[in-house]
Amino acid sequence: MEGAESIYATYPPRLTAAQEQFLASTIKNWTIQNGLTVRPPTTFVSQEAVSKGVLATNAPVTLFPSPFPKTSFDEARAVQKTYNKLYADISRDENWLGEIIQELIDVDDFISGLWKVHDAVKKQGYVQSLSLGLFRSDYMIHTSSGSQNPSLKQVEFNTISSSFGGLSSRVSALHSELLSFPSGHQISYPPHPLFDGRVPPENAAVETLSAGLAAAHGAYGSSKSSPSLPLCILFVVQEGERNIFDQLALSTRISNFHNIPVFRLNTTEILDLTSVTDSNSSRPLIYTPPHAPNTPFEVTTVYLRSFYAPTDYKSERDWAARLHLERSAAIKCPSVLNQLSGCKKIQQVLADPNRQDHLSRFLPQGDSDTAERLRRTFAPQYDLAANGRGRELALNPETAAFHVLKPQREGGGNNIYKTAIPEFLRSIPESDWKSWVLMELIQPPEEARNVALRSDGEVISGHVIGELGIFGTILWSSNGEILHNEEGGWLMRTKAKESDEGGVAAGFSSLDSIILY
Amino acid sequence: MEGAESIYATYPPRLTAAQEQFLASTIKNWTIQNGLTVRPPTTFVSQEAVSKGVLATNAPVTLFPSPFPKTSFDEARAVQKTYNKLYADISRDENWLGEIIQELIDVDDFISGLWKVHDAVKKQGYVQSLSLGLFRSDYMIHTSSGSQNPSLKQVEFNTISSSFGGLSSRVSALHSELLSFPSGHQISYPPHPLFDGRVPPENAAVETLSAGLAAAHGAYGSSKSSPSLPLCILFVVQEGERNIFDQLALSTRISNFHNIPVFRLNTTEILDLTSVTDSNSSRPLIYTPPHAPNTPFEVTTVYLRSFYAPTDYKSERDWAARLHLERSAAIKCPSVLNQLSGCKKIQQVLADPNRQDHLSRFLPQGDSDTAERLRRTFAPQYDLAANGRGRELALNPETAAFHVLKPQREGGGNNIYKTAIPEFLRSIPESDWKSWVLMELIQPPEEARNVALRSDGEVISGHVIGELGIFGTILWSSNGEILHNEEGGWLMRTKAKESDEGGVAAGFSSLDSIILY
Repeated sequence: MEGAESIYATYPPRLTAAQEQFLASTIKNWTIQNGLTVRPPTTFVSQEAVSKGVLATNAPVTLFPSPFPKTSFDEARAVQKTYNKLYADISRDENWLGEIIQELIDVDDFISGLWKVHDAVKKQGYVQSLSLGLFRSDYMIHTSSGSQNPSLKQVEFNTISSSFGGLSSRVSALHSELLSFPSGHQISYPPHPLFDGRVPPENAAVETLSAGLAAAHGAYGSSKSSPSLPLCILFVVQEGERNIFDQLALSTRISNFHNIPVFRLNTTEILDLTSVTDSNSSRPLIYTPPHAPNTPFEVTTVYLRSFYAPTDYKSERDWAARLHLERSAAIKCPSVLNQLSGCKKIQQVLADPNRQDHLSRFLPQGDSDTAERLRRTFAPQYDLAANGRGRELALNPETAAFHVLKPQREGGGNNIYKTAIPEFLRSIPESDWKSWVLMELIQPPEEARNVALRSDGEVISGHVIGELGIFGTILWSSNGEILHNEEGGWLMRTKAKESDEGGVAAGFSSLDSIILY
Repeated sequence: MEGAESIYATYPPRLTAAQEQFLASTIKNWTIQNGLTVRPPTTFVSQEAVSKGVLATNAPVTLFPSPFPKTSFDEARAVQKTYNKLYADISRDENWLGEIIQELIDVDDFISGLWKVHDAVKKQGYVQSLSLGLFRSDYMIHTSSGSQNPSLKQVEFNTISSSFGGLSSRVSALHSELLSFPSGHQISYPPHPLFDGRVPPENAAVETLSAGLAAAHGAYGSSKSSPSLPLCILFVVQEGERNIFDQLALSTRISNFHNIPVFRLNTTEILDLTSVTDSNSSRPLIYTPPHAPNTPFEVTTVYLRSFYAPTDYKSERDWAARLHLERSAAIKCPSVLNQLSGCKKIQQVLADPNRQDHLSRFLPQGDSDTAERLRRTFAPQYDLAANGRGRELALNPETAAFHVLKPQREGGGNNIYKTAIPEFLRSIPESDWKSWVLMELIQPPEEARNVALRSDGEVISGHVIGELGIFGTILWSSNGEILHNEEGGWLMRTKAKESDEGGVAAGFSSLDSIILY
């Protein structure tokens, strides 16, 4: 089959008004029927109606799956377990990690706060040697002018609250159904050669992520309380989470398939509803459901879908709650150190072409093949040290135009792009520059197009940029033992090219699926 | 186990604020995740937001399943196939049916309009000998003062657009999950003896109703068009249907499990998008999807989720559309005659204790057991003929207090209750009285209580009345041959006692499930 650019000359097929109307109304119904939903934003429905907690609308989704090169998809999957282990090993290497984090501590309160949590627990002694990672490695297709073949470049590696596994597999199901029904007469889409017999590849994100949490639950062992208590997994979430159905897809699987009790808890409720008994040196974390105060549970695994951004720590009480969890016997997904391993600075250090080789430190000695394979997924990244290459590229408008400037934050929305970089840097104190990372922009296919249904029912179409995430889970011990290391499931997010940022919940981009070519 | 009254002395268990909050928020999430949803009413969300067609909210549901006597549930299921055949046979007996309908024609424009459709098709000759019925027989538990045992009394028998099969089975799943999870520590509800190991009985409504439609599709045979066309089932629906997810549960099953193409069509689109080729004496009904105008389908089965109320016929064009469907080769679910067999007058004639025995006419000769079994489910019903028992009971406020006055309409909302009956009758011309039926009120358990979550998120609790519907499907030929006759699936609706009417979509009542005792 042809390359990406020629595919997009005819893809997606143009829709008549009746075809667009059919697809939009079918998707509006399908998403509600199948929980491919979000709580509506208050920009669309009144705050009063939203506050009742009953309304839902479709997650933003593309009408068509997006073409994606099979070799790149296979490669992204093939390196995931290596990436899982790399970030587990970085999290275990407190000295190396600490040295890099030290560079950020005086300029980044958030990083500093996290490190303080680690320090405090270290003083008391960690009581849990196991850590769980539910990771997502995000990529874009890079079409460099010199090369015929598109290559795979990592945008970022997420070590906390990797989202959209739950909804993503439903988008695959949606597009598969549209491509397959009615049986023998596929008329939902206009015909296109790319559709001939193709459906999106299997997407086992829910199964994989849930199995990771179940593995941690199992590895925790029996209750450390006396008398012993029933065990559970705890999802720690943000208040008023609009993306709740993504999370519920995992908790439902854990409850119904793995038969493990799961509870949800807002960050603000942690200190009220959980306790750590200091008289018990194992420090089990006890959760007392307010609706069943006589049936306390012992928490084996804390899964964070919160606490990943500075805004999740509104007061010292929130930092106290994070410390409270961290010092307990529960397995954390992630631990503070594992969260810190995902900050952009680490990715920059690994990918900086002008810096000493750090990557090999974490790979089996002599395995240059694996190192090379990972390196091929790196886009060049730089720090902004004085007299360094990064500073030079960032301050020159001509070279800045090919770069993006990223803070340490997860979740998007904070990046500075292209020619805005020099001006932005001059607007902040030079002492803060070291908290930023400069990354060469990946050049995705220019002509990619798609059509999306927004959560407010509007249908928009135009040029897009796609980002593929691969999910992986790993459970490791501080002594280096790996108890579980799996790859499985993926996420395709597609954003309108006019917007420079990701983050589906923020309304900039849509959930998508892929057709391999 | 004890009788209904003593059960309700302790049922449902009282909820603390935290317990109610847990159940309400769990159900708010579960319903969206599992499509137990309706489109929101404009009383709750602005017309503008509703018009985008993307929002959904939970269907009104009870927090607890309702206790129901096992013997009555078994009996309701046991008579369903006999009821299926009874109404099929009534629909085939044009003379008998016509005689009764004649009594209504000059006082009821709607009944008269339906009969005219039948007359017009009869003149041209029917081209389809098969008819499909998707029925629901509705019952209440009757607790007469003299008897210890509760008995089962039929409220009505529905022959068109029998709804809530799709959502009802999900309510069973919801209550089962609340009763079963977390595994080994059932803490969703406060403990109650009725819960010990019990979950709602299996509810195969979706499977049963879909299998009925699939049976008709299969019995239609091959395409009658030349050249032959692909075959499909057509759902004819109301514009702006809020209860769409109930319908989609059936069409999804038909499409994904039975592999049969299904399309939805508003009544207003019938004449634009379907055609009957008169040059073909078989008169196949052709549907041309607007999104695939080059791929017309031949309709094997027309499933009406519209055309059941006078408000569905806004102009002569709607009557023309109904005639257009009726004269075609498609199997109708229901045919006009089958729809007419469901009018209240028929049920009154069968159940009138002061009238000649009509029931035996439709049952196997000498099978007095079956007749007796059906009769036990009848509440006494009367017409209002001059000097008749019905008129006497209706005009006397003392006896009227034990009765309900019903028009021929489906769907509730038009009944006159108790002491309001004499005054109402005097307010309309006596010549119109014959379009009304007087029915003895069923006396459900006085103390029944439940708690419900409304679609706007409000939680209400109080005394309730429950109504159990049993679903059945039958496919028959005009020559009396029965090709398919099945019973399966049920609906529990629970309404606040303060309201006298049913109709969940109207907001008066909630979907419920049952625990057998």
